[in-house]
Amino acid sequence: MNIKNIQKQLSDFADERDWDQFHNPKNLAMALSVEASELVEIFQWLTPEQAEEIMGSSESEHVKEELADVMIYLIRLADKLNIGLEDVVADKIVKNGEKHPKL
Amino acid sequence: MNIKNIQKQLSDFADERDWDQFHNPKNLAMALSVEASELVEIFQWLTPEQAEEIMGSSESEHVKEELADVMIYLIRLADKLNIGLEDVVADKIVKNGEKHPKL
Amino acid sequence: MNIKNIQKQLSDFADERDWDQFHNPKNLAMALSVEASELVEIFQWLTPEQAEEIMGSSESEHVKEELADVMIYLIRLADKLNIGLEDVVADKIVKNGEKHPKL
Amino acid sequence: MNIKNIQKQLSDFADERDWDQFHNPKNLAMALSVEASELVEIFQWLTPEQAEEIMGSSESEHVKEELADVMIYLIRLADKLNIGLEDVVADKIVKNGEKHPKL
Repeated sequence: MNIKNIQKQLSDFADERDWDQFHNPKNLAMALSVEASELVEIFQWLTPEQAEEIMGSSESEHVKEELADVMIYLIRLADKLNIGLEDVVADKIVKNGEKHPKL
Repeated sequence: MNIKNIQKQLSDFADERDWDQFHNPKNLAMALSVEASELVEIFQWLTPEQAEEIMGSSESEHVKEELADVMIYLIRLADKLNIGLEDVVADKIVKNGEKHPKL
Repeated sequence: MNIKNIQKQLSDFADERDWDQFHNPKNLAMALSVEASELVEIFQWLTPEQAEEIMGSSESEHVKEELADVMIYLIRLADKLNIGLEDVVADKIVKNGEKHPKL
Repeated sequence: MNIKNIQKQLSDFADERDWDQFHNPKNLAMALSVEASELVEIFQWLTPEQAEEIMGSSESEHVKEELADVMIYLIRLADKLNIGLEDVVADKIVKNGEKHPKL
């Protein structure tokens, strides 16, 4: 499954539930940040060392679901804004390379 | 460019700058949420209607960069946790379908 | 009850539960942002008009609790950093006035 | 300066700049979470030990300003929702005490 494919699935999913009325870019950006914070919540009281071991803990499924939720809203928002995620990531990596030269 | 490909690029990028020491899952989750909030900031004072028109405004490049930053940290975090993003998204869409039946 | 008073209560509360080990500034900043996002979550799918009416809805108690949680972590963090919240707010209002002149 | 006092100042400040049109509860909740993330950003790559030392670093003024920004939006939002911050905090501390008994 690639990103285009996921976009189509999410678009159909929203249509079938009449959710399109809620999915304007402002609301989707909010939802994305809320899901990112639910991921942060898992890590907030852990030491860096405990955080490294999270996938061996009882929280592993929870982590997967929160990562998925962030990805879902990110893909949905990119679709609504007609932005190609892989393209903008490739551009950003080039830009970051100029900003932060190799050691 | 696919996600595996981007993961490799980001991993090399971090190695070449000795950033791996900072990229534990706790810090990456924080960075992801910070980038998501930078996206929210673009929309915070806009009406829903203005938000719909954002890609026709002078903020369009800014939106692309923030979306890219969220994606970059999401992919980097998934790599560190050894999570397949497409797989967990596919699982989550099934789960969401059970939770929210079609109209 | 004033802020100094609340600080003392929160400090005692943490001591009595041996939570001080978790309350370093990094973790408290994360917790603060997580609570702020829980507040955002309440509003994310509402129209601006529905948001205005929130305190007449069944979510009113929920809103109060999330506002309280943000305030609690803000006060706790300020205490840990030895920052006087009223002082820094007064300074910031002056600075904002210089940055954004009256109409 | 107490909270009531700050509320009046912030309300006058918004009036004098015709900002009231932007300050609905949804937008203010977003702005609050954005400011909380700007605080998180300061700490994101620090070790817990470095975070403890932040007020002795060149970031100390930055930390004060971000804490002030969070407080300003929190107070403004509470004012708009007609919520007494000290009251809801007192209620929440009682509730937290029932949820998390002393050791």
